[in-house]
Amino acid sequence: MKKSPLTPNKFPKFPPLDGVLLSTAATSMKYKDRDDLLLVSFPQGVVIAGVFTTSKCSSAPVDWCRGILSLNKPARALLVNAGNANAFTGKAGDDAMTSTIRSVADNLSCELDQVYVASTGVIGEVLDADVINQYITKAAASLASDKWHDAAQAILTTDTFVKGATRTAKVGNKSITICGFAKGSGMIAPDMATMLGFIFTDASLEQDILQKMLQSACDQSFNSITVDSDTSTSDTVLAFATGSGGKISDIDNPILDDFKETLSELMLDLAHQIVCDGEGATKFITIKVSGGENNRAAKRIAMSIANSPLVKTAIAGEDANWGRIVMAVGKAGEQANRDALVIHIGGQKVTEHGMGVDGYDEAKCTEHLKGQKIDLLVDVGIASGKATVWTCDLTHGYISINANYRS
Amino acid sequence: MKKSPLTPNKFPKFPPLDGVLLSTAATSMKYKDRDDLLLVSFPQGVVIAGVFTTSKCSSAPVDWCRGILSLNKPARALLVNAGNANAFTGKAGDDAMTSTIRSVADNLSCELDQVYVASTGVIGEVLDADVINQYITKAAASLASDKWHDAAQAILTTDTFVKGATRTAKVGNKSITICGFAKGSGMIAPDMATMLGFIFTDASLEQDILQKMLQSACDQSFNSITVDSDTSTSDTVLAFATGSGGKISDIDNPILDDFKETLSELMLDLAHQIVCDGEGATKFITIKVSGGENNRAAKRIAMSIANSPLVKTAIAGEDANWGRIVMAVGKAGEQANRDALVIHIGGQKVTEHGMGVDGYDEAKCTEHLKGQKIDLLVDVGIASGKATVWTCDLTHGYISINANYRS
Repeated sequence: MKKSPLTPNKFPKFPPLDGVLLSTAATSMKYKDRDDLLLVSFPQGVVIAGVFTTSKCSSAPVDWCRGILSLNKPARALLVNAGNANAFTGKAGDDAMTSTIRSVADNLSCELDQVYVASTGVIGEVLDADVINQYITKAAASLASDKWHDAAQAILTTDTFVKGATRTAKVGNKSITICGFAKGSGMIAPDMATMLGFIFTDASLEQDILQKMLQSACDQSFNSITVDSDTSTSDTVLAFATGSGGKISDIDNPILDDFKETLSELMLDLAHQIVCDGEGATKFITIKVSGGENNRAAKRIAMSIANSPLVKTAIAGEDANWGRIVMAVGKAGEQANRDALVIHIGGQKVTEHGMGVDGYDEAKCTEHLKGQKIDLLVDVGIASGKATVWTCDLTHGYISINANYRS
Repeated sequence: MKKSPLTPNKFPKFPPLDGVLLSTAATSMKYKDRDDLLLVSFPQGVVIAGVFTTSKCSSAPVDWCRGILSLNKPARALLVNAGNANAFTGKAGDDAMTSTIRSVADNLSCELDQVYVASTGVIGEVLDADVINQYITKAAASLASDKWHDAAQAILTTDTFVKGATRTAKVGNKSITICGFAKGSGMIAPDMATMLGFIFTDASLEQDILQKMLQSACDQSFNSITVDSDTSTSDTVLAFATGSGGKISDIDNPILDDFKETLSELMLDLAHQIVCDGEGATKFITIKVSGGENNRAAKRIAMSIANSPLVKTAIAGEDANWGRIVMAVGKAGEQANRDALVIHIGGQKVTEHGMGVDGYDEAKCTEHLKGQKIDLLVDVGIASGKATVWTCDLTHGYISINANYRS
């Protein structure tokens, strides 16, 4: 698979994070010559939060994680496999999953309900637990604290590059580390995507606070991106906080402000990396909508633009065909004032007063569209609701990848 | 433009329809070597009904037609141009449209508010009324009753074949003719599509009855198809009834049953032709959903499947990847029972009990997918709601056409 032209320069160097040990293995079940299994161990236990797909056909791993999350017990392990989503696999799939969870619990000496799992890949094929279990034992024997890159790589499916981000935040006078990695390329839409995201921090937080922060940051990051409007059965974002310091029990405590902001920034970074690796993507598109009836309406309009095949193909073709943006605003089902609608492409105003701006410089627009970062600004002229979403263009690459997925 | 592989054998032979005169002309404004302007005259006036786009950014012609339709006056003319939608063109667009309406009214000696107009093509460019008006005069001089094929051809844009259908129905002991033609290829989704549809009948009907029948038939035809989920600013379906016989003022009068059914059948035929000409289409896909919470929920699930790029590319790739259908059911936002979900592809059951059917014959599925007519049956196991929608596959052809639309 050729690397996306939007690949970032390099995977960042992660600082050490006490209490997190990682290991990967190659099961060779689907992919050859690469690791496809990730085991993360938290020997002291960690506080955990999670956000999951809204799909009504969620996978066995998603249902399992949702269930144990509600128990509010410390997490001891995370197991991820790539290539097989173990979704829509009925009782056989549940049994296979439970068998792998038991294997992790045995190897790491913890309870079953302290083991989080995520599977990503083809839907409808039962996971081969015997093979997985054999590699769990192997991986458990080689856990180490510096395997971040290997870990981020082992969870990929159709991704063309490894996605990671790290930041430092202040909580009081303590310096806090946040590390995260993610996968996702197609079937990416809110809520959420065929995406997995794992965030690790040494902050000390109560579960409900971590959960609220994660949900809020998700809304502005992983739930504000779309590649193809399709939503997977397996989407999972988990955040693990290892810290054992004094508990903070008030989410509005300003001591958390920098951490909250930094967490959001890191998750947005990862979300953007997913868009940059959108199947067939050649352009990264930022869509800002203002003037909506409210923020929800603005987001729905922004997503209508972001998911429009005609807008996405026009941008792929570097064609400043703003009429398609008007179309996508019109079809969103939210209030929009045609005569007050103002569209900017690459900073240049192209519509106002219900028509194209007289004598606007189309060559300048085309020049902007020839770049890799495309900026669309749309004011729908109703009230003050606003939203920003991110997407990529729709190209022959997407068709090539997806008309031939399983072979 | 190469003809769609799904092109029907031939354009049907239309019987004569008293009171309808047609004429076409080539303005050469966008297309070369083809007619792109249609004028239809109803010398005695006709009863008219209309269904329009739900876009909040509807075009000037749509707004105009909606306005005069509410006056309940007999229609005297229909003017259609292809290549320029005259949408989002502000006051200049309104003025251009009004000028062409005046020209039609002058040429055919009728009132302005008896002239219906439809424009289809690029959004955002003001129509050149001077050129159009010159050809209106020309067309008005050559009106004739047998120009159905020319008329159906003149309204096309990216269509690769001419779309028409004709039927005969009984109202009492009278034999009634219905003729219709349509255009549409991309930007096709409910409600409705970059589609135009014009239906003509010699039935004698009151406006409100014709309107109700048209709306109901639209819901089951033009509003049950999708090519790319995009909804145009210009979608218009108009029905014209020339008959001057005794009025029928009760829509539930069984005397209308055959006519209603035949009208629906004709509109469905046209809607299917639009799907067959979906941009880049190589396969015609019928999606039947049953077991929904209600009919609305079933339609929403069916449309979620029909609009899923991953389902459409899998079918393009002739890959029986039913996991993507599960995904699309899951993301629809409607109730679905994962463990009761039953999917058939080409008549073969592929899922039940929350997993793939053990030992199902994938080769048989693949064989079905290699054909041009694909049948998906999905029972979501909740209640008895059902819906059928039609779509096409998503191929490189769609990208090629739309990444290069305006040049």
